[in-house]
Amino acid sequence: MRSVFYISDGTALTAEAFGNALLSMFPVTVEQRTIPFVDNEDKARQAVKRINEAHQASGLPPLVFHTFVDLNLQNIVINSEGVCFDFLQHYVQPVADQLQLAPQPRMSRTHGIRDDYSARIDAINFTLDNDDGSNISDYEQADIILVGVSRTGKTPTSLYLALQFGIKAANYPFTEDDGFESLKLPKSLKPYRHKIYGLTLDPQRLHEIRNSRREGSRYASLQQCRFEVAEVERLYRREAIPFIDSTQYSVEEIATKIIAETNLKRRHY
Amino acid sequence: MRSVFYISDGTALTAEAFGNALLSMFPVTVEQRTIPFVDNEDKARQAVKRINEAHQASGLPPLVFHTFVDLNLQNIVINSEGVCFDFLQHYVQPVADQLQLAPQPRMSRTHGIRDDYSARIDAINFTLDNDDGSNISDYEQADIILVGVSRTGKTPTSLYLALQFGIKAANYPFTEDDGFESLKLPKSLKPYRHKIYGLTLDPQRLHEIRNSRREGSRYASLQQCRFEVAEVERLYRREAIPFIDSTQYSVEEIATKIIAETNLKRRHY
Repeated sequence: MRSVFYISDGTALTAEAFGNALLSMFPVTVEQRTIPFVDNEDKARQAVKRINEAHQASGLPPLVFHTFVDLNLQNIVINSEGVCFDFLQHYVQPVADQLQLAPQPRMSRTHGIRDDYSARIDAINFTLDNDDGSNISDYEQADIILVGVSRTGKTPTSLYLALQFGIKAANYPFTEDDGFESLKLPKSLKPYRHKIYGLTLDPQRLHEIRNSRREGSRYASLQQCRFEVAEVERLYRREAIPFIDSTQYSVEEIATKIIAETNLKRRHY
Repeated sequence: MRSVFYISDGTALTAEAFGNALLSMFPVTVEQRTIPFVDNEDKARQAVKRINEAHQASGLPPLVFHTFVDLNLQNIVINSEGVCFDFLQHYVQPVADQLQLAPQPRMSRTHGIRDDYSARIDAINFTLDNDDGSNISDYEQADIILVGVSRTGKTPTSLYLALQFGIKAANYPFTEDDGFESLKLPKSLKPYRHKIYGLTLDPQRLHEIRNSRREGSRYASLQQCRFEVAEVERLYRREAIPFIDSTQYSVEEIATKIIAETNLKRRHY
């Protein structure tokens, strides 16, 4: 199998994002390896050794996606037997020309601690403190409140909003306590209805997810899933709460769709 | 101020990663806006309108970083007044040549639901269930167990490991109950010491973080922070537990350093 390496003198997260986006255009299965923090000549030579060994093992030259600040280390790596791609190469000069500024490469530039860092950590803490309807007194501070029945993706989406974008996302699960037979917007949520966003899911998929947690329970039964989903969607429509059916979407897609639709202000880029 | 747009017919997360990495090389402050899910001509023309308005407002042509699968929509956007950068452009053909495959662009290719998706969701659920020492019976299943005193970054790091890499990361906080005066590895952790990784922090920084949560408390006092950090670092050294001082590092950097050092297997690329 073809090997792919992501290499950097930093986290290599940018090299991964770059390589992943490119490779996802091709119907190919590859063996992926990341070598981050290659910040001295020894480590660079070790990386070269691993690239060359992968070449010997498969007979195919590995693809190497790299982002180095230190050009001396980069030089060592691009003299390996891999086919090397530096994704900044073609773009730095055109951007410099537009900005009329010279580039000033420095370490930890993309994923280090920046001005907006504590806002992100605050958002993560807020989201954890307000997970699963656990702290309804804090909704005043929330940027958004995700609602939905159990296992429709509220918690992963909240966490992604906090980690990636610094957004304070609370979430509130509708449960038996809210009375599915005549579901109403809970009192604690009423003052914040402008911040509420609903999630829903195909009942069959919900049934499968719940069954893998509590097999054979009433909670997981298809009948119960159908009932809860129907009631909650009826509530969304009656109260004009915007909502998304998350069945076909990943956490990243749900989170970015919600931001696009609500014009939620991000604290982190 | 110069405007920067990230535009895509998908999440635009790749366009953001690409533009961010490039812009972080320049000492410049920009106004950033993301327009995701530009998936019809109407939305493409609206995006063009926003780009042109930003040009009029500042007198500077906006920088536009885009990743389109639909080339018809891309064409509409690159005919705006912005300076447009397509980061795949220079790399698709060389990669295609190497792989001897034609590219097959499709929607949701990078951030959609893929084979490894449920592993990631499982990891997030595991990490939440095992946050803050709350479920010490599950350590058998953990890929890694982060330990440290309160407020040293265990929870954000665990969540990042789970969300980004699909790693099941438990965490255990050392507290007064563990007896800082003669700190030992708790019994519940002993069978899993090969999975344990320690976090520590500069006592002054820890004092500031704790003070913003519980101002003036004994818990937040510089003296208490110094004492706890000294005791926990002594434990790490005595028990040969690998550890990292997170004072200078972001969550991304801590997580990727831990993976690199422990050879932790990722479930998601």
